[in-house]
Amino acid sequence: MDKELFTLDFKVRDYECDMQGIVNNSVYQNYLEHTRHEFLLSKGIDFAELARQKINLVVLRAELDYKQPLTSGDEFYVDTEVVQSSRVRFDFLQNIYRKRDNKLMLAAKITGTSVNERGRPFVPDVIVKLFPQEQLAE
Amino acid sequence: MDKELFTLDFKVRDYECDMQGIVNNSVYQNYLEHTRHEFLLSKGIDFAELARQKINLVVLRAELDYKQPLTSGDEFYVDTEVVQSSRVRFDFLQNIYRKRDNKLMLAAKITGTSVNERGRPFVPDVIVKLFPQEQLAE
Amino acid sequence: MDKELFTLDFKVRDYECDMQGIVNNSVYQNYLEHTRHEFLLSKGIDFAELARQKINLVVLRAELDYKQPLTSGDEFYVDTEVVQSSRVRFDFLQNIYRKRDNKLMLAAKITGTSVNERGRPFVPDVIVKLFPQEQLAE
Amino acid sequence: MDKELFTLDFKVRDYECDMQGIVNNSVYQNYLEHTRHEFLLSKGIDFAELARQKINLVVLRAELDYKQPLTSGDEFYVDTEVVQSSRVRFDFLQNIYRKRDNKLMLAAKITGTSVNERGRPFVPDVIVKLFPQEQLAE
Repeated sequence: MDKELFTLDFKVRDYECDMQGIVNNSVYQNYLEHTRHEFLLSKGIDFAELARQKINLVVLRAELDYKQPLTSGDEFYVDTEVVQSSRVRFDFLQNIYRKRDNKLMLAAKITGTSVNERGRPFVPDVIVKLFPQEQLAE
Repeated sequence: MDKELFTLDFKVRDYECDMQGIVNNSVYQNYLEHTRHEFLLSKGIDFAELARQKINLVVLRAELDYKQPLTSGDEFYVDTEVVQSSRVRFDFLQNIYRKRDNKLMLAAKITGTSVNERGRPFVPDVIVKLFPQEQLAE
Repeated sequence: MDKELFTLDFKVRDYECDMQGIVNNSVYQNYLEHTRHEFLLSKGIDFAELARQKINLVVLRAELDYKQPLTSGDEFYVDTEVVQSSRVRFDFLQNIYRKRDNKLMLAAKITGTSVNERGRPFVPDVIVKLFPQEQLAE
Repeated sequence: MDKELFTLDFKVRDYECDMQGIVNNSVYQNYLEHTRHEFLLSKGIDFAELARQKINLVVLRAELDYKQPLTSGDEFYVDTEVVQSSRVRFDFLQNIYRKRDNKLMLAAKITGTSVNERGRPFVPDVIVKLFPQEQLAE
């Protein structure tokens, strides 16, 4: 797979900062989720449309390394790539960089899967197509 | 160390649920943070007061395993214990259980530290007292 | 109508505070919404269940008077009553009081209605029953 | 005053939608706040910097008319203008329009003031300059 990086630009919004004057820890998950959904959309995978069809993309595990805090006024971007870690599991590797100095602020690995209405693993065709067949054979 | 468990009760609020009808992934970090702060407060450590003194308790790493989703109406509780993993690092082990069946919904390890105004590690006395001296010798 | 007051207890969570060290303005709407939903639930009206049936309770207008800010550690309660302002409109009168001194922190009037899948006003029986017939005749 | 309109572009993020599949009511206040802060910044007024100086811009009253709900994928913009309604009060008139059809989704009037560390009204020079002297005389 060509480790194509999808990138999305953001700016910190003041309501995202907490009493320490920095972006609250939970908010980074919002940034990461929005970037994943925009990344998927760029591949023709619409999270909201799938949810309406009762196919739910869900997170199984999140690992987040907080390197430096974002604060009011900071512009930043989120890089995202995805690798298939099993037939029904996908690892999103996501990094958040501050724009003015390209400093790494947060590194994350988010493992997700796709489930049907009964909560059973179900990978729709649009997602299968996301991964070249060769990849799993590696 | 006596693995004393601090427990806090919650109920899902509908605004915490997303279009999948389940609690959004980022919201669990809110639950975990609030429980940590209440746990610390029960030990005489006031996060907000420390922040006003420019001593900031910060998260370095978060690992969250999403087992089952919480949904509208669910009552749940968060168990929390803390272990000192280095002179200036603390691991909070936190589990979220659904009340009606005590089912584990999320397991997390949140690693934090304490920094002063210049962002340097600084562990105030109130936090030092949290950990028995023997523990580090282990 | 007997101006029965429904009351729900809360405690400020630190992630709800912003860089000014006080609860962010938008968060009060979360408190109010959660209280409305618990109020409705106490009357047998389940917001989430209605949403699944494609009957959506929606807000048409919100008026909020911010009197004093809530801050970290504050316990508070939200009083709620509802009056029917037209055949398909309901005004929730909600007040937030700080617990330690019963001081009024916020007063709100939230006007809502109920719509069906096509977005047309539709008041299900469970809601009709909420209001005594005499009330509209007034 | 020339009713100059400040405009900021947004796109709905999926985590902002609730179980009804539409943007949660409280989130509009986030959009409005972020737009006000960007508007002020464009005038040289930095909300975060003022907060660090213990000068707090606070909201006294919010009126929000919800016209149509924003939903997943919607792009929108927020128009903002401000008028001085008394020596120490400012009314922000803000409208949210969906981009694809310029449809009005929400209209709001947010009344704010500026207070010092003791919570007393205090309007710093940067804000005084925002309003031409003639305006109050009207």
